[in-house]
Amino acid sequence: MIDADFDSGNIEVLSIDGAVARLAVRADNMSEFLQWFHFRVAGPAGQEVTLKITGLEGSAYPLGWPAYNARVSEDREYWAAAPSTYDAAEDGGTLTVRHVLGSGIAWFAYFAPYSMERHHDLVAQAAASDGVAYRRLGTTLDGQPIDCLTFGEGETVVWLTARQHPGETQAEWWMEGMLDLMTDPASSVARALRRRCTFHVVPNCNPDGSRRGHLRTNAVGVNLNREWENPSAEQSPEVLAIRNAMDKTGVDFAMDVHGDEAIPACFLAGYEGIPGLSEEHLERFTRYRTILDRRTPDFQQAKGYPVSPPGKGNMTMCTTQLAHRFGACAMTLEMPYKDHDDAPDAAQNWSPERCRQLGADCMGALLEWLEG
Amino acid sequence: MIDADFDSGNIEVLSIDGAVARLAVRADNMSEFLQWFHFRVAGPAGQEVTLKITGLEGSAYPLGWPAYNARVSEDREYWAAAPSTYDAAEDGGTLTVRHVLGSGIAWFAYFAPYSMERHHDLVAQAAASDGVAYRRLGTTLDGQPIDCLTFGEGETVVWLTARQHPGETQAEWWMEGMLDLMTDPASSVARALRRRCTFHVVPNCNPDGSRRGHLRTNAVGVNLNREWENPSAEQSPEVLAIRNAMDKTGVDFAMDVHGDEAIPACFLAGYEGIPGLSEEHLERFTRYRTILDRRTPDFQQAKGYPVSPPGKGNMTMCTTQLAHRFGACAMTLEMPYKDHDDAPDAAQNWSPERCRQLGADCMGALLEWLEG
Amino acid sequence: MIDADFDSGNIEVLSIDGAVARLAVRADNMSEFLQWFHFRVAGPAGQEVTLKITGLEGSAYPLGWPAYNARVSEDREYWAAAPSTYDAAEDGGTLTVRHVLGSGIAWFAYFAPYSMERHHDLVAQAAASDGVAYRRLGTTLDGQPIDCLTFGEGETVVWLTARQHPGETQAEWWMEGMLDLMTDPASSVARALRRRCTFHVVPNCNPDGSRRGHLRTNAVGVNLNREWENPSAEQSPEVLAIRNAMDKTGVDFAMDVHGDEAIPACFLAGYEGIPGLSEEHLERFTRYRTILDRRTPDFQQAKGYPVSPPGKGNMTMCTTQLAHRFGACAMTLEMPYKDHDDAPDAAQNWSPERCRQLGADCMGALLEWLEG
Amino acid sequence: MIDADFDSGNIEVLSIDGAVARLAVRADNMSEFLQWFHFRVAGPAGQEVTLKITGLEGSAYPLGWPAYNARVSEDREYWAAAPSTYDAAEDGGTLTVRHVLGSGIAWFAYFAPYSMERHHDLVAQAAASDGVAYRRLGTTLDGQPIDCLTFGEGETVVWLTARQHPGETQAEWWMEGMLDLMTDPASSVARALRRRCTFHVVPNCNPDGSRRGHLRTNAVGVNLNREWENPSAEQSPEVLAIRNAMDKTGVDFAMDVHGDEAIPACFLAGYEGIPGLSEEHLERFTRYRTILDRRTPDFQQAKGYPVSPPGKGNMTMCTTQLAHRFGACAMTLEMPYKDHDDAPDAAQNWSPERCRQLGADCMGALLEWLEG
Repeated sequence: MIDADFDSGNIEVLSIDGAVARLAVRADNMSEFLQWFHFRVAGPAGQEVTLKITGLEGSAYPLGWPAYNARVSEDREYWAAAPSTYDAAEDGGTLTVRHVLGSGIAWFAYFAPYSMERHHDLVAQAAASDGVAYRRLGTTLDGQPIDCLTFGEGETVVWLTARQHPGETQAEWWMEGMLDLMTDPASSVARALRRRCTFHVVPNCNPDGSRRGHLRTNAVGVNLNREWENPSAEQSPEVLAIRNAMDKTGVDFAMDVHGDEAIPACFLAGYEGIPGLSEEHLERFTRYRTILDRRTPDFQQAKGYPVSPPGKGNMTMCTTQLAHRFGACAMTLEMPYKDHDDAPDAAQNWSPERCRQLGADCMGALLEWLEG
Repeated sequence: MIDADFDSGNIEVLSIDGAVARLAVRADNMSEFLQWFHFRVAGPAGQEVTLKITGLEGSAYPLGWPAYNARVSEDREYWAAAPSTYDAAEDGGTLTVRHVLGSGIAWFAYFAPYSMERHHDLVAQAAASDGVAYRRLGTTLDGQPIDCLTFGEGETVVWLTARQHPGETQAEWWMEGMLDLMTDPASSVARALRRRCTFHVVPNCNPDGSRRGHLRTNAVGVNLNREWENPSAEQSPEVLAIRNAMDKTGVDFAMDVHGDEAIPACFLAGYEGIPGLSEEHLERFTRYRTILDRRTPDFQQAKGYPVSPPGKGNMTMCTTQLAHRFGACAMTLEMPYKDHDDAPDAAQNWSPERCRQLGADCMGALLEWLEG
Repeated sequence: MIDADFDSGNIEVLSIDGAVARLAVRADNMSEFLQWFHFRVAGPAGQEVTLKITGLEGSAYPLGWPAYNARVSEDREYWAAAPSTYDAAEDGGTLTVRHVLGSGIAWFAYFAPYSMERHHDLVAQAAASDGVAYRRLGTTLDGQPIDCLTFGEGETVVWLTARQHPGETQAEWWMEGMLDLMTDPASSVARALRRRCTFHVVPNCNPDGSRRGHLRTNAVGVNLNREWENPSAEQSPEVLAIRNAMDKTGVDFAMDVHGDEAIPACFLAGYEGIPGLSEEHLERFTRYRTILDRRTPDFQQAKGYPVSPPGKGNMTMCTTQLAHRFGACAMTLEMPYKDHDDAPDAAQNWSPERCRQLGADCMGALLEWLEG
Repeated sequence: MIDADFDSGNIEVLSIDGAVARLAVRADNMSEFLQWFHFRVAGPAGQEVTLKITGLEGSAYPLGWPAYNARVSEDREYWAAAPSTYDAAEDGGTLTVRHVLGSGIAWFAYFAPYSMERHHDLVAQAAASDGVAYRRLGTTLDGQPIDCLTFGEGETVVWLTARQHPGETQAEWWMEGMLDLMTDPASSVARALRRRCTFHVVPNCNPDGSRRGHLRTNAVGVNLNREWENPSAEQSPEVLAIRNAMDKTGVDFAMDVHGDEAIPACFLAGYEGIPGLSEEHLERFTRYRTILDRRTPDFQQAKGYPVSPPGKGNMTMCTTQLAHRFGACAMTLEMPYKDHDDAPDAAQNWSPERCRQLGADCMGALLEWLEG
């Protein structure tokens, strides 16, 4: 028996035959994007269940499925890789996931979920830390708040944003690791960064899509990361609220945190395509990327997106818009749904634990970058 | 700034003037019941906020407001009593709550909330314990599962149910304390009870009302605790599913766990009004009640509901129906929103911590009752 | 390889032959008592080790060994029962303990140890709780402090003492459970007891014997529970310090917490043998015992020590001395090294977890007794 | 009232006058070294106590006292800096420490203590981790084991040693942070290092001095870090056991972890003075040091020990001996008792939390060094 009527749940049951279920992913509301799934399976402990998620050639990123393993948890804390295979020719593209139930109930997801309840816990805990101010930047179309945390006394203005694409839950796990470090009074990295910078942090830019179990869009099917040139109150109030707040503070350094469906690696995308880019401006980005590469086996520079030719950048995206609008060193951090193949983990593949660690590592790299 | 668009959130903002907000509770969907509130307040740390919840003479239990304190939490774990006063003559009945913000954000509720995420954590943790089987009894009108946990190898059939009335979150905190005890292999009470009894536990009978922020009803405004005589798939599939499962196992002992809005005490209600009640049958109940009274200062027998005359009981309620249908020793446990005045706690009033403890105490009493 | 040179360590290695070790217990300093053992075994993970503790017919309680299982831990938190057999005819009485090493290292003990470091943690945590005062009652012969914690505002003077016999570590685990409850502001039992009583708690009456790995005596081989009539600065400064403090406060209710080597049950010993005992005085004890019996499956009244005839009591013991000296309701609580056979736990036998629970249960019984 | 009769306790009370105590540090057994102190103070909550530790011009490092703050803890977990002043002219050199008692009891130490109980917990936890083998390298003069943990499958042989000088407890906190990282299956740094290297870890080289409350020596007053050329079973069995084990494995990379009394900074000391040092050999060290400097604000290269001229190195020390004997990249890591002034923390100064973090950072640097 299969359920998905909960925070970020997404699955449709097509048929169940014994211990084999045929399933399909529901598209984002008012959109054709579909990729994120999250559901619960109940059955006799000890039974192997076979879950066939069909129709995936019609998903947003069909290249995301080969060499990908679904994630499974029975205690809702530890998320393991569940052995999965993809057959593009079966039933419109089918991911077959197998799992032996240890208890009578198991949760499956595209990546370890990050619920809105956990989001509120994160905001509450951070807001209660010394020197952290909470701000409500605006309201989503479903009526949820856009939460922002501000801390630090320095001149360098840093903006960190995550989960424009709500199904990229990696991004909020990253936020949790980053905030744990930055609110730790014993951390010298945190103390040094808070002395040099002022941080503005939006742990979840798209609460509506998060709660609704969307992959990429908000309540009305809008991809927020194509709204940064002309955000609107009707279509993208989330971006409008955040960009307005940025306009008041300016932006020196920005990281927008994402997950990538197809590429089995962590990587950064920059702003090579913005108009009038100076060498000095670009060097700030490449230098940060080099530092991070050196600091952690969970990052690399070989794999990534193709670079836009000069002046051909898509200015509707957060990173390019901030680089252009503020002259910021802006970047998009991508983490895999698959694994980071340079440092593979057979048990979990890419995991919440590694997202959290990378959140901390990015702060270490920022300090080294500032001191460079 | 005030938000309530989250799990079990419920408030309407009428007006905000500086640090004073006029608010109103939204009625349960398709119903006139209104009493439960749950919302988040953001503001500058150090500021005193004044929250005026108006129109409460029209609430389900106007007698619930005098001598009641709202609950507040800034870390979402510890829920304190926020000093509150009630004026029946102000603005249709107004509860005025005052709180000095320690951080920039605080959560207020009628009683400490118990989210569906926490519910799933509870079910997962219990289901993963040795000897506990998970069953899905049925589906709510919103499409959520009715979760049931079964354990124990004994002849005495025990059914424990909670949160028919979803705003009575005390009941699921009670379940958490009870399940923690009963799944603890080191507990001699648990081992003895599991040897003597088979337990069937429904930690949340009304997930739809819980998520929607209702006080007393399910998704279509139905009070489930008036449906036990004739449950229907259309109006009360939750009760239908549970009662059908009970019909298969029979019921020897049943406790249905609730919260009471007006009476400042924990108490039990029985089945004095069922037709053809024998002395022996009634004695089983009164003996349990006496044992529990002796075992904990968080229970008493002086305060409570008026007793139905013989044969005049309302057979649509869980307790009476089970007592009659199965000859069970059935009972309704009520815990206060106010405080248990015989053992007052000025800091928290009645609290999740005490609900949990009472859950364990009720099991100790059950063992003593069985051995009596 | 076997080590015992640590807090409460006690073993001598006679010989090691492959995975079989012949061992002997070292007697308490300046004493012939020997029974307590505590040592660490290192070896290849996966290997079964056989530990033969010899010469036990010369131990303090040879009847303690039949039907007893040694305790083992690999994480130093969870203490399991290690399958053990006793042969009185082998090598002067040999307990043979078998264990398959899960990691490369395992700790064995007569009962789960309670180190002086943990004692200091316990004292620090309790002393930091609201309304708890720390007092240093005196100094042991080795120079350690006798720690006492005082709390409560009531008229009834309660003294709780433990570990006069240092190898009876059950007693300090009991203290931990009792103090956790009594310092919990959410516990109604604790709040009620602190309103009615003033508590004086000595969690460890014999730190020297504890650290030295003794069974029954202090640094100079003195059994403290035979010193209550005439304690001396030279032989028993621990008792002298505690009794002097009691003389200043008086004693209404006292529990002295112990472990019993032979009897597989928890039980209470009273003061039937003191001179001039009134019926009313004795009834206070028997009533408490009855209440506790009713409240927990981890207590019983059938097994226990023979009762002293009237006037024939040993007045050198804590319980009899306090009953006589102060007219107190005093008692000795005994917990087994074996198991409490009325509620057996095959995995752990009697355990720290159950000691802690009984500490809490004894407080519940005290409240019921006071209200009776 | 002042006590020090516990694990690593060290103080003598010269006099107490009201809330002012005159104290003195006891020298290491059979040695003149004195510097480490650790004691407990009991008094009325709310009282300010003044602790005058006298005679410190005769301590091992009188330069350690100016600009130093003693550490204090009331919960035995969080160690704060207690405001302290040093007057070389008062009473033979007096450190005056002031503290307002929050509860009735407080612990003071030269640095946050690391007890042998915690050592055993650390060893047990690490030994129980996947792929970690425990070995007992030898026995101290007091009879304690020399514990060693081995893990990893790679060719590079790494030896990590700590607490040759037992009062330098920083070193075992470092070990705890390092081991937590290296036994974390989710850490990519740990997985990569365990694939490339085999680690041999001795978390505490001097358990006797640790338990006895020594600063620098073992049970017979021997400074182990002057024994690496000619260790003996009579004087330095600890070093003999460890060096023998190293002779069997060889050593490619070694870090010996210490604390420094006078210099307010973390730094590394190398092997510039060993005979026949090649440029390539030295470059391995300087490159590691540069990497670590770049990676964390809790390390620097400006402050440190004077460098030995070529061929003039003291070959009795661990680092020089290993560099010479094995051609290893060996180094001594020093952490301050004062603060790391480049990244000061007014609340705690240098702290256990930062030792732990530096343990993890040194592993990150090792991976970067191996990949360089």
